[in-house]
Amino acid sequence: MSPLLNDRLLRALRREPVDRTPVWIMRQAGRYLPEYRATRAQAGDFLTLCKTPELACEVTLQPLRRFPLDAAILFSDILTIPDAMGLGLTLDEGVGPRFERPLRDAASIRTLPAPDIAGDLGYVLDAVRLIRRELDGKVPLIGFSGSPWTLATYMVEGGGSKDFARVKGLVYDDPDSARLLLEKVTASVIDYLRAQVEAGVQALMVFDTWGGALSTPAYRDFSLTYLAKIAGALKGDPVTAEIPLTLFTKGGGLWLEEIAATGCDCVGVDWTLPLGAARMRVGDRVALQGNMDPAVLYAGEERVVAEAERIVAEFGAHPGHVFNLGHGIHPAIDPGRVAALVDAVHESSAALFSNGT
Amino acid sequence: MSPLLNDRLLRALRREPVDRTPVWIMRQAGRYLPEYRATRAQAGDFLTLCKTPELACEVTLQPLRRFPLDAAILFSDILTIPDAMGLGLTLDEGVGPRFERPLRDAASIRTLPAPDIAGDLGYVLDAVRLIRRELDGKVPLIGFSGSPWTLATYMVEGGGSKDFARVKGLVYDDPDSARLLLEKVTASVIDYLRAQVEAGVQALMVFDTWGGALSTPAYRDFSLTYLAKIAGALKGDPVTAEIPLTLFTKGGGLWLEEIAATGCDCVGVDWTLPLGAARMRVGDRVALQGNMDPAVLYAGEERVVAEAERIVAEFGAHPGHVFNLGHGIHPAIDPGRVAALVDAVHESSAALFSNGT
Repeated sequence: MSPLLNDRLLRALRREPVDRTPVWIMRQAGRYLPEYRATRAQAGDFLTLCKTPELACEVTLQPLRRFPLDAAILFSDILTIPDAMGLGLTLDEGVGPRFERPLRDAASIRTLPAPDIAGDLGYVLDAVRLIRRELDGKVPLIGFSGSPWTLATYMVEGGGSKDFARVKGLVYDDPDSARLLLEKVTASVIDYLRAQVEAGVQALMVFDTWGGALSTPAYRDFSLTYLAKIAGALKGDPVTAEIPLTLFTKGGGLWLEEIAATGCDCVGVDWTLPLGAARMRVGDRVALQGNMDPAVLYAGEERVVAEAERIVAEFGAHPGHVFNLGHGIHPAIDPGRVAALVDAVHESSAALFSNGT
Repeated sequence: MSPLLNDRLLRALRREPVDRTPVWIMRQAGRYLPEYRATRAQAGDFLTLCKTPELACEVTLQPLRRFPLDAAILFSDILTIPDAMGLGLTLDEGVGPRFERPLRDAASIRTLPAPDIAGDLGYVLDAVRLIRRELDGKVPLIGFSGSPWTLATYMVEGGGSKDFARVKGLVYDDPDSARLLLEKVTASVIDYLRAQVEAGVQALMVFDTWGGALSTPAYRDFSLTYLAKIAGALKGDPVTAEIPLTLFTKGGGLWLEEIAATGCDCVGVDWTLPLGAARMRVGDRVALQGNMDPAVLYAGEERVVAEAERIVAEFGAHPGHVFNLGHGIHPAIDPGRVAALVDAVHESSAALFSNGT
């Protein structure tokens, strides 16, 4: 493998000093880029894009050709694991993800098979190997998974949900079945992330998109417990122990200290929580990733730059900040705003760090 | 007016001792009740239901005929104010609220007129008077408004929104116009709530449904500031000073102390925050309203009862708890679950308070 030419992300995740704050953007390979839309049209549909390593590699690299981002993130979907478990994923534009065979009773949870990661998810590992080769050491590659709770919401609801009626009904009515499902998914997530590392990813992130929909006791029982199991397993395994792990619960600001205590290296923070306050709460136990409101990118360039500078300054001249949005970039954003954002993060943090020495 | 026969709600809002914890349910007059669906079908559409005092009165009273609730809440919609400002509201089943003439530029904000409350919103005041007469002192009647920020989101977006692209674009690009809009809406909210009190409501609540979508500095600037102006104006006016005021920002757990410091009497808490922790944070400065996850009502009756008991016990034998869900009841809930919930709150709190003396 080629030596890594830009290690800012990995250094920041380990809370080591950097010359400027590393920046990447959730969904940086996405619909706001015309070249992404062209490749997706070529693929025909989203799932084919995910399952064709050459196309997944192409869209992973597209944002790096435009912007001096400090990381690539594997182009894939969080629902690949349940798809490999046989639930039958479809991802149609405008409809969102749907499973043909959602888990609607205790029996279907009991008989849910483990996925064959090398087989059914081999396309993800092929994409990782191809992207690493094409990146040629330019920036590190981030691998990822959905969190067990977030995957379980889709698996039980059969798709996206506003109120989580079915999965919360399961949690409250049959907590033992809910825990069995979460245990099975957790084991698969651990194996999947390990396989991604073996294929070449250099950092890991777990997206807990729907943890924030839970009450505090339910969050602890049904999401945090399994995030902690993932962190414990990865940190206890020589293959994955040194790979920085970021955990991100959207809407998880109330539980920041508890997420930081799982053994992860970095906690993702959405835009509702001020990053300075977040840093005070976790101290130097973990790095923090975030946290500009993605909607700021609808404003003019001057305002985007001002917000980026404000967030860099708010974190301050400490190690351990990975700049990102607080959630994925929206499809209607002008790519020019992203260019302005990335430059503002690099320039303002370079000034901050050089003043600090 | 008839004397008030059940003053538990008002006593709890003033943090005075009660024999049992008062309970009401956000959207208690709503689609989960077959008799509500029948009246709505009779009205033809939702807005006609809101604008016909006899029908609004009927649906307000329906849940009180089924359950021993401790309050009635005026049946209306938060978007009556912008409708009265001329934006042209439609509320179609499945589509959600839409404005024909949303505010898309600074000029339309500058020329936005104040509503004629006695005239254009007279139907609300007529409904209040009618409901008070029909209630005959059984329980107090709660009046309400949307928060300035929440109303502004609909007025600028033209309807519901997932990402608040337009209104956040306004906030970041043209904060002066955003503030002018919020000032205008705030003045109308104050006048509207005062008129509701003059017509007979005995408690007030402001619903800040979308404050939680903002970053902390933006929440302070564009939502909390105006909630505090409302609280200040109502508490400084002899007509409204003694009417208990509840402020509820959904997703506002991070800002609880700041909401409590506005001068309101009670803070609504969604289900993400443990009520015991919330009480520790605000001490005896305000009462708290909440906070069961509405999705618990999808579970079996036994579990609903257990959750209600847990929340009553978590708040503890202190004055100042108004039991409610953490957000509106969902349309698919079995009314039998609500019956079980109300009884569980009353019975478990009666036991708690009698043990405490």
